[in-house]
Amino acid sequence: MAISEPTSIDRPGREPLFLRACRGEDLEATPIWIMRQAGRYLPEYRRVRETVDFLTLCKTPELATEVTLQPIRRFGFDAAILFSDILIPVEAMGVEVRFNPAPEIANPVRGEAEVHALARPDPVQEMPFVLETVRMLRRELPEHVALIGFAGAPFTMAAYMVEGHGSKDFARTKSLMYREPLVFHALLEKLSLVVSDYLEAQIEAGVQAVQLFDTWSGLLSPRDYEEYVLPHVRRILERVSRAGTPSILYGNGTGGLLELMDEAGPDVLSLDWRVGMKDVRLRLGDRRPLQGNLDPGVLAAPASVIREQALQILHDAGLRSPHIFNLGHGITPGSPIEGVEELVRTVHEESRRLRGDGSS
Amino acid sequence: MAISEPTSIDRPGREPLFLRACRGEDLEATPIWIMRQAGRYLPEYRRVRETVDFLTLCKTPELATEVTLQPIRRFGFDAAILFSDILIPVEAMGVEVRFNPAPEIANPVRGEAEVHALARPDPVQEMPFVLETVRMLRRELPEHVALIGFAGAPFTMAAYMVEGHGSKDFARTKSLMYREPLVFHALLEKLSLVVSDYLEAQIEAGVQAVQLFDTWSGLLSPRDYEEYVLPHVRRILERVSRAGTPSILYGNGTGGLLELMDEAGPDVLSLDWRVGMKDVRLRLGDRRPLQGNLDPGVLAAPASVIREQALQILHDAGLRSPHIFNLGHGITPGSPIEGVEELVRTVHEESRRLRGDGSS
Repeated sequence: MAISEPTSIDRPGREPLFLRACRGEDLEATPIWIMRQAGRYLPEYRRVRETVDFLTLCKTPELATEVTLQPIRRFGFDAAILFSDILIPVEAMGVEVRFNPAPEIANPVRGEAEVHALARPDPVQEMPFVLETVRMLRRELPEHVALIGFAGAPFTMAAYMVEGHGSKDFARTKSLMYREPLVFHALLEKLSLVVSDYLEAQIEAGVQAVQLFDTWSGLLSPRDYEEYVLPHVRRILERVSRAGTPSILYGNGTGGLLELMDEAGPDVLSLDWRVGMKDVRLRLGDRRPLQGNLDPGVLAAPASVIREQALQILHDAGLRSPHIFNLGHGITPGSPIEGVEELVRTVHEESRRLRGDGSS
Repeated sequence: MAISEPTSIDRPGREPLFLRACRGEDLEATPIWIMRQAGRYLPEYRRVRETVDFLTLCKTPELATEVTLQPIRRFGFDAAILFSDILIPVEAMGVEVRFNPAPEIANPVRGEAEVHALARPDPVQEMPFVLETVRMLRRELPEHVALIGFAGAPFTMAAYMVEGHGSKDFARTKSLMYREPLVFHALLEKLSLVVSDYLEAQIEAGVQAVQLFDTWSGLLSPRDYEEYVLPHVRRILERVSRAGTPSILYGNGTGGLLELMDEAGPDVLSLDWRVGMKDVRLRLGDRRPLQGNLDPGVLAAPASVIREQALQILHDAGLRSPHIFNLGHGITPGSPIEGVEELVRTVHEESRRLRGDGSS
């Protein structure tokens, strides 16, 4: 299936709108993409998944490319995000990962010996399928649609590796952190090297921006975030920055951590839906590129509610401030297609109207 | 078993330290209690639970009194909280509640008809066991230990009633909220009447302060909180305030909602652990009585970490500002007794030292 005509509002011949937003430029409209946009809420994605399991999908460049493109074709998002999973590099480090369907780790990391045994994989050797997917995507994607690479942030990956699965309170992770802080730091340091290598390889293969997903760091107090997480995130973002590529830092439940996340040095800070854009502008300043932050639950609401809430976010983000529209968390599998259509239409039309540039 | 000699640092003959903290008075020390302090981490609690199921325990005043007193005897907390469950009034409204062990609701509330069918129970008639427990506790508790009553806040109770159980994203609740806002408001209005009646009855029976648990409201965006939740919480807190009793408002994951929760008018705002006390002081002012906010996960840490983190919270809360020490969320079942002992000792000794009053 060929990619449809660009429905994005961006003008040809310029750098993609999304990338200019990452750089904090004044824009004629607000770009939009949504986390987990290639996923189970799409019938065309479910059809692909009927034929292969999740890990095979991640590891087959043709299929990963296809599902990455699906939401671009359907909705005209301004950015595509590489289809993969944050645990792919964990597997490459020598940890056995399964999806049933939630991720499970057969040999969790619990102490010093396991941390030392973890490999620092060469992405070109160990995760060639990811880089091949990136190259295929750059060939397939229209010029105005940016390609985002990604990785899990060290704490979020460590939490999976220590618990062996998702958790409500991450008691084991915190226990290791408090009881063996040196081992914990060694684990996060190793992960930050692996993630940096991995993101650099993605950048070399062609991604134009990267997002670091630190979904679970919102379970930490600000003081623990500052001590155990921030230095490792900063190191990764510095390496991405040296590659000249914009970075986005995302966390969930991080309303109390935003200043610290800001200190880590991402180009764009990605917000969950539980903070007000206006408050965040007051805290971090008008020129800070922000991404977000609609409650994913709103996609199931009537069109009038979607419009109203999207408009308020556009207003609160500031009409002259750098903003990338997104959800505050990944789209849920039950979300209706029409809700996404309404959202994309509203953001594209209204942001162009509000930013006062009807010329394109 | 008789209650042990007071180990609290409060002086006899005065209003309990905890209540003076709620009123924002200058204190000689920082009072402490912890959410879910009567619970499964205590061997003496587990022994009681071996003989009865959870609902029977809630409904048997002698047993509910006994488990309420257990942590007071053991640790010398400055306040006891009535042992009960936030779904007790839900059951009295005509909704079937089971615990397996997580709460489950057999006939969830999904639309207008179910909302209209909900009763507004008379607490004296329908929940006499709660009021009897309160009266027994007031007889048993030493004068320096305050008794806290509580209820679930309307949104949190509604979320259980609509979903039928806990949930990750509360999709059904949000769907009802967005699709049938009038029905949703009718549900929350009914709940706010029921909760107000219930708290007034507890106050009449003898509780000296009340805490409103709005655990799930942290899953809402500030704008939805303001529109759908705030008016109902405010109405309840106004009725409590008219009874002359201090109120505490607790939410989890509410780092982005604190100003709005403050507007709802509680005497004390109870924080989760994912916001910094110092930041909250900047946002809400030095004289705002705050409760919190140690990460429950820290109780499993070595004594030195517990001490260090407790001390930092005491400092950040402000040595001359009203503060009640608590965890940022309920204590988890696996928490070690020694961790709690270390915490209570640190808070009592260090706060007295830091507040500069060694006279008692």
